[in-house]
Amino acid sequence: MTPPGFGARLAEQVSARRSQLVLGLDPDPNRLWPAAAPPGEGAPSAAQAAAGAVLAHCRRVIEAVAEHCVAVKFQVACFERLGAPGWSALAAAADAAREHGLLVIADAKRGDIDVTARAYGEAFFGGSETPFGSVAGLGADALTVNALLGEDSVAPLLDAARAIGAGLFVLVRTSNPGAALIQDRVLDDGGTVSDALAALVRELGGSDPGQAGIADVGAVVGATVPEQLVRLRAAMPAAPLLLPGVGAQGGSISALAPAFAPGPAGGLVAVSRGLVYAFEKAGGEPADAARDEAARLRALAWSLAGAS
Amino acid sequence: MTPPGFGARLAEQVSARRSQLVLGLDPDPNRLWPAAAPPGEGAPSAAQAAAGAVLAHCRRVIEAVAEHCVAVKFQVACFERLGAPGWSALAAAADAAREHGLLVIADAKRGDIDVTARAYGEAFFGGSETPFGSVAGLGADALTVNALLGEDSVAPLLDAARAIGAGLFVLVRTSNPGAALIQDRVLDDGGTVSDALAALVRELGGSDPGQAGIADVGAVVGATVPEQLVRLRAAMPAAPLLLPGVGAQGGSISALAPAFAPGPAGGLVAVSRGLVYAFEKAGGEPADAARDEAARLRALAWSLAGAS
Repeated sequence: MTPPGFGARLAEQVSARRSQLVLGLDPDPNRLWPAAAPPGEGAPSAAQAAAGAVLAHCRRVIEAVAEHCVAVKFQVACFERLGAPGWSALAAAADAAREHGLLVIADAKRGDIDVTARAYGEAFFGGSETPFGSVAGLGADALTVNALLGEDSVAPLLDAARAIGAGLFVLVRTSNPGAALIQDRVLDDGGTVSDALAALVRELGGSDPGQAGIADVGAVVGATVPEQLVRLRAAMPAAPLLLPGVGAQGGSISALAPAFAPGPAGGLVAVSRGLVYAFEKAGGEPADAARDEAARLRALAWSLAGAS
Repeated sequence: MTPPGFGARLAEQVSARRSQLVLGLDPDPNRLWPAAAPPGEGAPSAAQAAAGAVLAHCRRVIEAVAEHCVAVKFQVACFERLGAPGWSALAAAADAAREHGLLVIADAKRGDIDVTARAYGEAFFGGSETPFGSVAGLGADALTVNALLGEDSVAPLLDAARAIGAGLFVLVRTSNPGAALIQDRVLDDGGTVSDALAALVRELGGSDPGQAGIADVGAVVGATVPEQLVRLRAAMPAAPLLLPGVGAQGGSISALAPAFAPGPAGGLVAVSRGLVYAFEKAGGEPADAARDEAARLRALAWSLAGAS
């Protein structure tokens, strides 16, 4: 039996939780929430101690803001730098997100060809069969993807995603200033590199985005470039847009209204430092400050989507 | 003390080993070399058993062909799909390569912004300092990088690389057919997206590539597109070129001569399946067939480089 597609699942989840807010977790072992007890004590290596502390931090942040969120976006680099223990912590933190009813978005920006793309698909989605038994994948609901290598680099990832009802977010226009170097370049037949990536998103998302009107191939569009949002939304009418860059990077939620054209699930607002370090501005307990800020951002996005 | 730069180290290594051949390792648990004893026996999980077998396979392949190679290129996806045990296997396999005097190239095609790029730099190069102690990185000599996100995504990786005398290989024109979708697109001010990426490689490589004439920022250019090689070499005169796609993907070593313009270390010929599965065509023991094929490819590349 084919599982429900990611677009339909996302739309249902957004509707049920009345939220488009995505908690971004990019844990830095040097900037974790203060814990009652040093969670790394007694670990046999620095990497294991750090990974244990990172996991404890992630669990506490998830617990604090889960009620206001629809998903958690894990920045894979921040776990990868802790080696094998970091990967175990990532898997456990993803479990914690699921236990709170949240979707899991792996922000890994992977992109490679044929057999390698299939290997990444196994890593982040459903796992692999080996002569040694079944090896589990991360079981993510969605993965961020870099499509510089073209359609044949994305297709194997999409196959792996669809097999478990998951989806992709293809980088179309990232939130950083350097994005201008390649993504904003104008092509001789019109449009920018971002437009060419948007066309790929529309093509791969297929003609049957499901009754929810949301496709299973979405796009990453930085909240820092609202001036591009109308054009890119028009180029990808059914794609869910993952919108990073609010807060620390200078983006503003109020400029993101065009994202929600296809419905409340048309835009997902990803906020990392703006939630986790809200207490540095607001004072008080980290968990309380994060929860309050999440409530505020959730309400702001929801009102923009005209969905209240 | 600043360690010697990657360009100088690479040139010295190529000269000392009289080889530009790079062993590509993208191990598939379903296609490992037959082992005397099932190496995964007794492991507590399928992932650990598979990772143990993958590591044993990598060690045997490295041992078989090391004398003819200058480096090992690890396809990180193939380890990542085995989760935490896969990361441990990657680190151990990299150690095995170093024990045989080979450079370690992490083929991970990473690309992300600011704090995330720094985290990837820590993962693949020198590690990180945490309140729990120093966490080791992979200690790679070079990392493949996707620069779709622009210069500010590459710079933090380059900083991390240079701190340990390592380098980068930026994707400029990949070996797959789908590369045409974005990389071959013509820009309105002339040149292709690949040319824009090549300009970035030249700029980042700096004006002081060292006395060896080889820069520490190189480029990935597929051996499948020799018709682009002359142009891209001219655009990046000092960049070492990592050339995948020989063999299984249809590329031919004899078409790669332009890569060696700056010297014997100007081109690195990466061969994966063509070595590991040479026995399927040639017959005999996998190790013998791989060694013979490595000797042949090494001699072919060396003669092309006019370095014999």
